[in-house]
Amino acid sequence: MTIYNAPVEEMMFLFNHLKDNKNYNEIEKYKEINSDLVKDILDQAAKINKEIILPLAKIGDEKPCVYENGIVRSPPGYKEAYKKFIEDGWTSLSCDPKYGGQGMPKTVSTFFEEMLSSSSLSFKLYSELSIGAYNCIIHHADQKIKDKFLPKIVEGKWSGTMCLTESHCGTDLGLLKTKAIKQNDNSYKISGQKIFITSGDHDLTENIIHLVLARIPGSPSGTKGISLFLVPKFIVNNDGSTGSRNGVNTASIETKMGIKGSPTCVLNFENATGYLIGTENKGLSSMFTMMNLERIVVGIQGLGISETAYQNALAYAKERKQGKANNSKNKEADLIIKHADIRRSLMNMKSLTEGKRSLAFWVSQLIDVSLNHSDKKVKNSASDLVSLMTPVIKSFFTDIGMEITNDAIQVFGGYGYTKDQGIEQLFRDNRITPIYEGTNSVQAIDLVYRKILNNKIFEKYISNLNDEIKLCVKNKNLSIFAGKLEKYIELLMNFTSWLKEKYNTSKDDVSSACNDYLKVFGYVSLGYTWLKILRISHEKLQVNREFFEDKINTAAFYFDKILPRVQSHYISAISGSENIMKTKFN
Amino acid sequence: MTIYNAPVEEMMFLFNHLKDNKNYNEIEKYKEINSDLVKDILDQAAKINKEIILPLAKIGDEKPCVYENGIVRSPPGYKEAYKKFIEDGWTSLSCDPKYGGQGMPKTVSTFFEEMLSSSSLSFKLYSELSIGAYNCIIHHADQKIKDKFLPKIVEGKWSGTMCLTESHCGTDLGLLKTKAIKQNDNSYKISGQKIFITSGDHDLTENIIHLVLARIPGSPSGTKGISLFLVPKFIVNNDGSTGSRNGVNTASIETKMGIKGSPTCVLNFENATGYLIGTENKGLSSMFTMMNLERIVVGIQGLGISETAYQNALAYAKERKQGKANNSKNKEADLIIKHADIRRSLMNMKSLTEGKRSLAFWVSQLIDVSLNHSDKKVKNSASDLVSLMTPVIKSFFTDIGMEITNDAIQVFGGYGYTKDQGIEQLFRDNRITPIYEGTNSVQAIDLVYRKILNNKIFEKYISNLNDEIKLCVKNKNLSIFAGKLEKYIELLMNFTSWLKEKYNTSKDDVSSACNDYLKVFGYVSLGYTWLKILRISHEKLQVNREFFEDKINTAAFYFDKILPRVQSHYISAISGSENIMKTKFN
Repeated sequence: MTIYNAPVEEMMFLFNHLKDNKNYNEIEKYKEINSDLVKDILDQAAKINKEIILPLAKIGDEKPCVYENGIVRSPPGYKEAYKKFIEDGWTSLSCDPKYGGQGMPKTVSTFFEEMLSSSSLSFKLYSELSIGAYNCIIHHADQKIKDKFLPKIVEGKWSGTMCLTESHCGTDLGLLKTKAIKQNDNSYKISGQKIFITSGDHDLTENIIHLVLARIPGSPSGTKGISLFLVPKFIVNNDGSTGSRNGVNTASIETKMGIKGSPTCVLNFENATGYLIGTENKGLSSMFTMMNLERIVVGIQGLGISETAYQNALAYAKERKQGKANNSKNKEADLIIKHADIRRSLMNMKSLTEGKRSLAFWVSQLIDVSLNHSDKKVKNSASDLVSLMTPVIKSFFTDIGMEITNDAIQVFGGYGYTKDQGIEQLFRDNRITPIYEGTNSVQAIDLVYRKILNNKIFEKYISNLNDEIKLCVKNKNLSIFAGKLEKYIELLMNFTSWLKEKYNTSKDDVSSACNDYLKVFGYVSLGYTWLKILRISHEKLQVNREFFEDKINTAAFYFDKILPRVQSHYISAISGSENIMKTKFN
Repeated sequence: MTIYNAPVEEMMFLFNHLKDNKNYNEIEKYKEINSDLVKDILDQAAKINKEIILPLAKIGDEKPCVYENGIVRSPPGYKEAYKKFIEDGWTSLSCDPKYGGQGMPKTVSTFFEEMLSSSSLSFKLYSELSIGAYNCIIHHADQKIKDKFLPKIVEGKWSGTMCLTESHCGTDLGLLKTKAIKQNDNSYKISGQKIFITSGDHDLTENIIHLVLARIPGSPSGTKGISLFLVPKFIVNNDGSTGSRNGVNTASIETKMGIKGSPTCVLNFENATGYLIGTENKGLSSMFTMMNLERIVVGIQGLGISETAYQNALAYAKERKQGKANNSKNKEADLIIKHADIRRSLMNMKSLTEGKRSLAFWVSQLIDVSLNHSDKKVKNSASDLVSLMTPVIKSFFTDIGMEITNDAIQVFGGYGYTKDQGIEQLFRDNRITPIYEGTNSVQAIDLVYRKILNNKIFEKYISNLNDEIKLCVKNKNLSIFAGKLEKYIELLMNFTSWLKEKYNTSKDDVSSACNDYLKVFGYVSLGYTWLKILRISHEKLQVNREFFEDKINTAAFYFDKILPRVQSHYISAISGSENIMKTKFN
């Protein structure tokens, strides 16, 4: 089985030293969220993750969800763990106190999301979409629905889903066919089949609240005629009690490569009662409130799994003896952690994982500002940056998660391929993250076409990076790194200009460059966050020399060994798409 | 289930146009292996692979090998398929006619190895090590053993294994503990435990011939005191019939991420009768005859699985409709093969897979020369190049196999993550290939320390590349590509000089650069082979315009989009190892 100890010290380092968004620090209600409180929450979170949630990972993989006679059963032990999980209030962490939540900012709840991803992605997915549904309802539903559904969701007694995909449409939601017919009481009857529904049915909660995209007859075709409905598994009476079963049935669950403890369902809606969320035909944009936050959470999954992979590879490298290290005077075989190549691999994992966490912390502050700042202009400005970073966090973090889990297997050698170590499970579990919530290519297209080519957010982003460079460029400890980053920022800007030019002359050039662009963007963003860490570390060196020297060293590794990847992506991308489009693929 | 149609046309293109090793064409016994004969063999091979072997892949994954009461049972249908497989003589394809083989050169048998890997790696592994054992026995055993064991192995009635690894030693064989005690009749009694033994036990053959590394008491410590023994599962009587059970027992089989239809065994040797192969204490070098050829075969596995992944992704892209392509005038959704980004991904798979096949064909000719040429000097020279290319083929092909199977899943979107399509199985099955027969990092270290730093093979290799460049540099269709390759060859040479310099001053710099070096070497080698294909394609354009235009286009893609990866690996590697070695990893 894998080990996992939540990196609370790392998280507290970010909370204490990198809470540097001026606007975040202006948010009134978060002023009392101090370091002691956060440390206390994270310590408790670390405990439940290690003791109760981590063991569920292996159980879920070995004894996956079962579908029998229309009923989905979760793996052994999941029910008991979930009971404890909601009793301790973990589903309510980031929710509004008005509905029973604890009102924690994203800067804190994201750490918890990471820990859950590290411990058991399958278990996490039971409550993850509940928070998604919560976000969607709180932003778009009317007060009656909020009052009726939110408290139980926040408490964790009811869970939520997102029902978008149909067998013929995943990425292209304009094709969806599920129908919604309006009734006399203003409710709707929903009919159709949805697939790939995470936690679509299970036995952990008393009710399941589906958020379903459907088409009202007579609506415009394509994405402009899609509406959003709340469809509970059990009808909820006016007093809040659950009543009769609604017309939602589980047709089957998928047999998957990983996340086997999480049921991925085919749901049949047959005249199911649903309630409109927001206005008719505007469903897709309401759903995107949920989707966008969810995409960032998927990125955090990639981060969490990377951390576990790193911890396990490191532990193994410290106990496995094999071969002699360079310059070893040892007569016996050395621990493999003495070998330069194994160390390189571990540093690769470490610098990427810590970099991702730090970048996520920057984005968490932006999200908090975008949701909670009192000045609307500030709010919108943060929101723009969040929308820019969303596809990057989602894709880059999950792709890097594949690299890291892959490297971790390699450290284990033959043992990494067997089930005993749990390390191959991380690789399989993480493999869903570049796919769901919009494949990473879809994210890359979103980044380029909607965020980069379509507005001015990019300049805002670059000015953030330049501000940091200004802080560093004259400092003798930092100038070399600032200079490197500057060079790659320039490359990113050239790449962006190339995209803008090609947008007018050859869209295929643009489309085929999106994935490379996202990667360049990701590596530069991580460079930005590592430069910040470098600056702080030099400032605070005397406070905790060992800790900050480690950070300085890891940053240097990132700049030396990883940031140069940008180069190849750029050269490759700007060679265009002529050969790509010409091929006949016979 | 996956589809697979053996790429016979591609293979025949190589056989007809790229059999360009002068020395290969001098081998007397291969002069009659003509195009018609090879086409006939490949067509038959394509048929058995598609009809009989391909279906075994899914079966083996869903109904893995079973270990019960000391006995290993293969998945349903494997026995029947294996019977047909040996009846048709496929195990004997590359073996010496003296022992019942068909005497085909590697240039032909490697195509067959690829097809088997494409169809079912699990099924392939039952006979793969038999050929390994055959190679080892034919080169190192005395005539009596050859006569006694080879005919049955060639016929496929008996299979073979390689027993190297013990729980405390995989890479570092010097640590091995299995003992061999000499008996009065010159046989030995072997005792010890071996793990990760592919096809260590099963029910497909009447006998299993284990080649076992063990230590004779009193031998030197480390790798200089290891001897090689032949240990049959059943004792073979002098008349060739199988007699009593030998002291080899299966303790368990591994539960693995993939290749579930292939049993990976823990074998207990308890006073098992064994026969010395070669001389005492020289076992490791005899085993390496087997290992080296086997490493190339593992590379071919990566190639074969890449081909299947590509074929399936392509087929799916031609039937799935989603979204609108750029400039599409279609009112409905377009086939995803119209999308530039999907096309880019498919071209990535295609150019890498075809490049790997062509490079493998070059190496196959070298192997044939190294084994069969009448001039010893020519033989040794080819052998040197083979030894240089062995770790490259093994590691680069299997790593690229991970990239390609990963990309293929991505083309399938959510469907790629479910078991129904078979595509995720390719990803899992291929994941063993960067591990077994020496992890890819071990290969990289072998390449750098034993092949590059230790002798002059590198210059021979470079002169091959320069010869090709000379042929191309003045041709208007080729000069731009020759120029690009030249630039990257220069980079490879600089990288090599850097290694040589650092070898004297900082071995850790060298060790931590090995993986990047191997990648650079791999990409440049593929560039070399693509340049050749380009030259031939322009020469033969009129013969088959569609075929050769496709090759020219795919080559251009490789040069534009993939070869630039070299750049980042180089910059990253030559930044050294200071941070890597300094880290405390607390």
